[in-house]
Amino acid sequence: MLQKKKNAVLVDGVILNGPIMDSKAGEKFVEEACKIIMEEVIQKANDVTEKVCEWRAPETLKKILDLEMRDTGESHQKLLQLCQDVIQYSVKTSHPRFFNQLYAGIDYYSLVARFITEALNPSVYTYEVSPVFLLVEETVIKKMIEFIGWEEGDGIFNPGGSVSNMYAMNLARYKFCPEIKEKGLSSLPRLVLFTSEECHYSMKKAASFLGIGTENVYFIKTDERGKMIPEELEKQVQRARKEGSAPFLVCATAGTTVLGAFDPLDEIADICEKHGLWLHVDASWGGSALISRKHCRLLHGIHRADSVAWNPHKMLLAGIQCCALLVKDNSGLLKKCYSAKAAYLFQQDKFYDVSYDTGDKSIQCSRRPDAFKFWLMWKALGTTGLEERVNRALALARYLVEEIKKREGFQLLLEPEYANVCFWYIPPSLRKMEDGPEFWQKLHEVAPIIKERMMKKGSMMLGYQPHRGKVNFFRQVVISPQVSREDMDFLLDEIELLAKDL
Amino acid sequence: MLQKKKNAVLVDGVILNGPIMDSKAGEKFVEEACKIIMEEVIQKANDVTEKVCEWRAPETLKKILDLEMRDTGESHQKLLQLCQDVIQYSVKTSHPRFFNQLYAGIDYYSLVARFITEALNPSVYTYEVSPVFLLVEETVIKKMIEFIGWEEGDGIFNPGGSVSNMYAMNLARYKFCPEIKEKGLSSLPRLVLFTSEECHYSMKKAASFLGIGTENVYFIKTDERGKMIPEELEKQVQRARKEGSAPFLVCATAGTTVLGAFDPLDEIADICEKHGLWLHVDASWGGSALISRKHCRLLHGIHRADSVAWNPHKMLLAGIQCCALLVKDNSGLLKKCYSAKAAYLFQQDKFYDVSYDTGDKSIQCSRRPDAFKFWLMWKALGTTGLEERVNRALALARYLVEEIKKREGFQLLLEPEYANVCFWYIPPSLRKMEDGPEFWQKLHEVAPIIKERMMKKGSMMLGYQPHRGKVNFFRQVVISPQVSREDMDFLLDEIELLAKDL
Repeated sequence: MLQKKKNAVLVDGVILNGPIMDSKAGEKFVEEACKIIMEEVIQKANDVTEKVCEWRAPETLKKILDLEMRDTGESHQKLLQLCQDVIQYSVKTSHPRFFNQLYAGIDYYSLVARFITEALNPSVYTYEVSPVFLLVEETVIKKMIEFIGWEEGDGIFNPGGSVSNMYAMNLARYKFCPEIKEKGLSSLPRLVLFTSEECHYSMKKAASFLGIGTENVYFIKTDERGKMIPEELEKQVQRARKEGSAPFLVCATAGTTVLGAFDPLDEIADICEKHGLWLHVDASWGGSALISRKHCRLLHGIHRADSVAWNPHKMLLAGIQCCALLVKDNSGLLKKCYSAKAAYLFQQDKFYDVSYDTGDKSIQCSRRPDAFKFWLMWKALGTTGLEERVNRALALARYLVEEIKKREGFQLLLEPEYANVCFWYIPPSLRKMEDGPEFWQKLHEVAPIIKERMMKKGSMMLGYQPHRGKVNFFRQVVISPQVSREDMDFLLDEIELLAKDL
Repeated sequence: MLQKKKNAVLVDGVILNGPIMDSKAGEKFVEEACKIIMEEVIQKANDVTEKVCEWRAPETLKKILDLEMRDTGESHQKLLQLCQDVIQYSVKTSHPRFFNQLYAGIDYYSLVARFITEALNPSVYTYEVSPVFLLVEETVIKKMIEFIGWEEGDGIFNPGGSVSNMYAMNLARYKFCPEIKEKGLSSLPRLVLFTSEECHYSMKKAASFLGIGTENVYFIKTDERGKMIPEELEKQVQRARKEGSAPFLVCATAGTTVLGAFDPLDEIADICEKHGLWLHVDASWGGSALISRKHCRLLHGIHRADSVAWNPHKMLLAGIQCCALLVKDNSGLLKKCYSAKAAYLFQQDKFYDVSYDTGDKSIQCSRRPDAFKFWLMWKALGTTGLEERVNRALALARYLVEEIKKREGFQLLLEPEYANVCFWYIPPSLRKMEDGPEFWQKLHEVAPIIKERMMKKGSMMLGYQPHRGKVNFFRQVVISPQVSREDMDFLLDEIELLAKDL
């Protein structure tokens, strides 16, 4: 049957015989680039003598990097140099002194999983295209559900905690009134949801994106530690009812972004139960504490939630992005809410059990196999290895707190519950100043100056922010297993050093 | 200043000196795994003697793979075997005979970029954390805008064409009535949008997610080639106005998912202009034709769009996911619509120009640097190299069409405009049957059988679907530069071979 046509076939001026790529040269390029990645990124990941960043201002960096895309391609040699430059001027988020965000560090197993998926380039929607990755996702979701404490459930990996929160908000709305899927929100009473003042900003983004409107997010007061006050929630729900609006959802936070506070889930669940409201817990940051027998009490009551957002790419180091939305319902609510039944993708007359084609639970079409990196890491470390990470991060945070208390000039904002250590550094010139507006104004300007100096020096990276009436303070987040007590000491020493003339 | 404390520090039972990971062992593991990836995935990418897939039914595959996550971790040896298994039973989407989706093939440059970003693990929201990747994204968006034909514009890379379409829908709504961001949709008239019957299913998902409702998506009739009929659009807009609803958006499609049809953008733009409607073009699939001087005429009129979705991960092989939403407005509409101004991330008192902190245009918080893989690939191939890919894919599709016409038993559904070649295979037993319901019923069952056989044999992967009253047919999509005319011949031969007894 097989026809052999040796002659070149020309269609529309294009020769169609054989491939157009030189795969041997391509493979060699990949090998050479991998060598650079190995030497310049991976092997330097825990070398504290390296800089965290090689700071260049935007205009300078534009001149250094040859950004322009041209008509003709560049040589492999030039491209490898470009790769070197990209690495050199990128922030080393795996550096032991990168404390700037809620992720950090390097996990070798997750990294391998990510290399595998990049090479295989799968999309997770149907079993026929992603058999392994769909089974892995199912397994990981089951396991995460076990740690939440549900007997059963459902879930989906998606691109970020913000998107998880959107999923939950829409799901709660669908549960509240399934007709909204077809009819939309016009002509409906005003839907109202509740979340704390300390919640992640994605709540507002979600309310706006979903057509609910940011004004219909009722922010509940928090106590001095940043925890939602249940009595205030009760009041606001009653207020909403009196207004004639339709409360449908409470979003509690387990691990707030700035302070690392955990809302009292059990008490909030009582209120949700009483009023028939969906309880979503944004545990994007704090969810990882569920892995630790010592610290899981922070999320006491989470099993009563209807949905949970949990990002293993944060404290567990699974790599950006690795985010799950988990749902207690196991009757197919997620699918009913999200399915569009595309006939070209989700054919019902396939030769295998199409219940494995889980892509129709997603707002995406193509979707990355993010569960896989968490899975391989978990296989490698075991639950005890993951637990050790959480325990160590929190012990390091504890150590830092005690050191801060001992040192002159350092002042804690509050006793942390989690890995967010928030503190001011009061430089020598301000230490004798009287408390008052001028003091706070001056203190407000300190953190940005220290930040600029540390960036330009490249010695570490640490975030600061003003927050709810408090002037700029540092937020130190401890995550990476490469981080040690010595790095905590360094951090404090370095702040003193950078600010000694202030 | 630097204090030296040599003694072990114990906090909460955790020893805090030194890191807990054995980085040397970790690096060795990465090296060994990379060798497997190189040999088993990358070097086999264009080997047609390899199977496209090693099919196993879900229950069987579960038994083969050791999916369970346990308390204790596995040895490196066991983990490397797991990696081998994952690769073995995963579909080889880079195989020259993988024609199942709108992506395929391998690009060595994009792959290197992806390895770099996985190793660096960045998140693209602020310049301080992602200096290189933010500048790269800005450059790539500018270049894509140039190919659309706008003088200026804005844009954002995001996780998929579906999400791009959601972005556009929300942006059009915001432009229509900025108050919706705060107030939401309740008490507003019914918003209505228009798209063709052949549009991607994400339009319905978006309308539902955004609270607009699927019933408020008015589907416009298409002609026999799958193109939106402008007169029908005009009628539907008038109908919506008469109903008292609020039309705000037309979503045209440039390259439909099944048929590869291009809506007549210029005529649609006239109608949008007349009625003051936002024109979004979903060019997720067809956008890549803009790179080809020969084929860009398919998108004639796209410069008149207000927003465009374009996925370089499809025909241009940038790797899943690489998707841009591009917006003509350059007055900051995208930011106004999406910003939430999180003070902990987007501090305004930074020491550099914070206009480079572009993350607040996104519905996500953490975001992957997807522009980078497109950029490195473009640097490597040049515009002419990308153009060659598009021209070759379309020439191969043309070749396949001509071969189909020559062969007995193959029947084209329609003359394709793009790389989607849709055809029936009529097996020997049906060739003499009379046209009628029984014939079509029997033909409907043919493609699933052939698909099952090719999957179990592993010789190729090709999608089929019923579509708008037409019984199951094959959709062959030609993308990869590793694909040659010989693969087209193989495809037809193989279908004949697999179906000879049908």
